[in-house]
Amino acid sequence: MEFDLIDRIRARAPSRDDVVLGIGDDAAIVQLPAGRQLVIATDTLNAGVHFPADTAPADIGWKALAVNLSDLAAMSAEPAWCTLSLSLPGSDADWLDGFLDGFLELAARHRVALIGGDTTRGALSIGVTVHGLVEPGRALRRGGARVDDDVWVTGTLGDAAAALAQWREGGHVDPLLRDRLDRPVPRIGTGLALGFAHACIDVSDGLVADLGHVCNASNVGASVDVDALPGSPALAAAFSSDTRRQLQSAGGDDYELCFTAPASTRDAVLRVAADTGTGITRIGRIDAGRGVRWLDRGGKKWVPPRPGYVHFA
Amino acid sequence: MEFDLIDRIRARAPSRDDVVLGIGDDAAIVQLPAGRQLVIATDTLNAGVHFPADTAPADIGWKALAVNLSDLAAMSAEPAWCTLSLSLPGSDADWLDGFLDGFLELAARHRVALIGGDTTRGALSIGVTVHGLVEPGRALRRGGARVDDDVWVTGTLGDAAAALAQWREGGHVDPLLRDRLDRPVPRIGTGLALGFAHACIDVSDGLVADLGHVCNASNVGASVDVDALPGSPALAAAFSSDTRRQLQSAGGDDYELCFTAPASTRDAVLRVAADTGTGITRIGRIDAGRGVRWLDRGGKKWVPPRPGYVHFA
Repeated sequence: MEFDLIDRIRARAPSRDDVVLGIGDDAAIVQLPAGRQLVIATDTLNAGVHFPADTAPADIGWKALAVNLSDLAAMSAEPAWCTLSLSLPGSDADWLDGFLDGFLELAARHRVALIGGDTTRGALSIGVTVHGLVEPGRALRRGGARVDDDVWVTGTLGDAAAALAQWREGGHVDPLLRDRLDRPVPRIGTGLALGFAHACIDVSDGLVADLGHVCNASNVGASVDVDALPGSPALAAAFSSDTRRQLQSAGGDDYELCFTAPASTRDAVLRVAADTGTGITRIGRIDAGRGVRWLDRGGKKWVPPRPGYVHFA
Repeated sequence: MEFDLIDRIRARAPSRDDVVLGIGDDAAIVQLPAGRQLVIATDTLNAGVHFPADTAPADIGWKALAVNLSDLAAMSAEPAWCTLSLSLPGSDADWLDGFLDGFLELAARHRVALIGGDTTRGALSIGVTVHGLVEPGRALRRGGARVDDDVWVTGTLGDAAAALAQWREGGHVDPLLRDRLDRPVPRIGTGLALGFAHACIDVSDGLVADLGHVCNASNVGASVDVDALPGSPALAAAFSSDTRRQLQSAGGDDYELCFTAPASTRDAVLRVAADTGTGITRIGRIDAGRGVRWLDRGGKKWVPPRPGYVHFA
C-alpha cells in the first residue's frame, strides 16, 4: 500500500537462488529442494508490549527476525525465507532504514531471503513469518521428551529479564544485559547440530513456562536444579542470588534453547557446545511425574515465581 | 502467548492430510506435493484503517483471509495453508468466536488449513500469511501483459467504495454494497481457470492503481473504456453516472481480478465465466504506450480520480 516504503525495502531485500519471484507481485514464489518439509513460524512484536518504546529501530528490526528464527532453531530447521508485515504510525524513512539495518544484518547472517510482506498505517507493530527446511521426521518437537532424559539449556538465562527490571527502575541499565534484551541471538547452528535431541523449545516465555510446555506435550515431569541454571557475570554482579534465580527461572525473552536428550549423548552435547561456541548446561532430568519440580543444590524444594506476561508500556 | 485464546483457536482450526504438525509447537510443518512451487502472500488489516471499527467480528475474520486468498487467486495458485497473527486490545472470547466463524467459513470453502500463528496484546490488527501451490512456471504475474492483449475484469467494480462512501455520510448503507465491502469473495476458482492469461492482479487499491501496476511491470500501456466497467445494479441505483465511474475506476477493496489475455482466447475467457459463474467483462486493450488512458464510449478522454489510500478512522 505504501509504495515508497515498499520500494525502500525491496531495494535492500536479500534474495536466494531458490526464490522464483520476490517482492513486488501479488505473492512470492519459492522452490523447495527435493526431500525437505517446510517449517513455518510466525511471531508479532508490538511496541510497548514486546519491546520498550525507546528501543532503537535497528534493535527492533533485529529482534523481530530473531524471535522468529529462534522458533526455527527450536525445531532444528534451516532458515530460508521470510515475510515482513510492518504497521507504522507514519511514513518515516529514517526509522525504516534503521529498522532494516538490524533486520537485514541478522537475515544475512543466516542467508534468509526477504520475499514479501506489506506496510500498513497503525500502531507500531512488526509481524514476521519465517520459513525453514527440515528432512522429513527430523524436526525437534516439544512432545518428544522421555523419562530419564537430561534437561539442557544453551547460553545463560535471566539476562533479558534483568535488563527489563533495571529499565523499569529507571536507573542504569547494564549495556550487556540490555543487549541481551534487544539483540537475542537465535541458536540456529546449535539447533541444527542437536538433531539427536528428543525434545526442544526456545525459552521465550521463561523456563518455568517453556519447560512446562515440554513436560505437558510429552506427558512427563522434570526436576530442575535451580542452582545449576546458567547465569552471566553481568547478572550476578547486579542482583542478589534470590532475585537472580527468579529472573533465570521465570524471566522471558532469552531465546535460548531448552532441550532434552538421553544421558548416552552427553559427550555429543558437549561437542556441539564446543563446535558452535555456545555454552550448554545440564540443569535437570525428565521423570515420570507431572510438571516441573524445582530443587536447590541442597535438594530442598524451591518455588519459582508464577510465569506471567511482561508488558513494556 | 495468550494460551486460552490459542487453545480456543486450536480447537477449531481445520487441518489437511499434508499438515505434518499444526498449531501448538514452536513452528508448523507441512509437506509439499512433488512438482509444485510454494506461493506466499501476506496482508495485514488494522481496525480503523482497513475496515470500519463497527465491522462485525465475523466479517473481519472473513475479510482478513479473503484479501490474502485474493492474492493467491491473482497468481493462479491453489490455496493450502495459512497462519494467523491476532493483536487484540483484550482477551474477548466472544469476539474471537465471532471472528473465527467468518475466518473458518472461508477457510473451509477453499480447504485452507490454519497451521499456526500468535496472539498478542495491542491495537486490533489481523495479520494473515497464506501459502498456495502452483506448477513451476504457471503462476500469473503482473509483468506478463503484451501489446494487443485484451484487458478483462471479473465481477463488478466500485461496490466496496460505494459502501464506504455511504458509511462516511452516516446515512443508509445498502446491505448489498456493505456485503461487498465486508465479505469480498476471492476469485480462487476463476484465477485457477485463467492459467492461459498473460498477466493478472487483484483489484485491491482500485483499477487506476492496479492496472497501472500491470502496465508498469509489463512495460506497456493500456486504453480502457470507462463506460465498459462492470457495475452492480445497487451501485447504479445509488449514485450518479459520474460518481459511479469514479468509484469503479479508483475505488479499492473490490478484490476482483484484472487480467490480460490475447484476443485469440476470448472464447476461453467466456467459458471460464460460464464455468465459474463469475461475470467477466472486457474493458480495454494493452498497447505500446505508457500508463493507462481512459476513454468514454464516445472515444473522448476521461480523467479518473487520483488513487489514494482510504482510511476508515
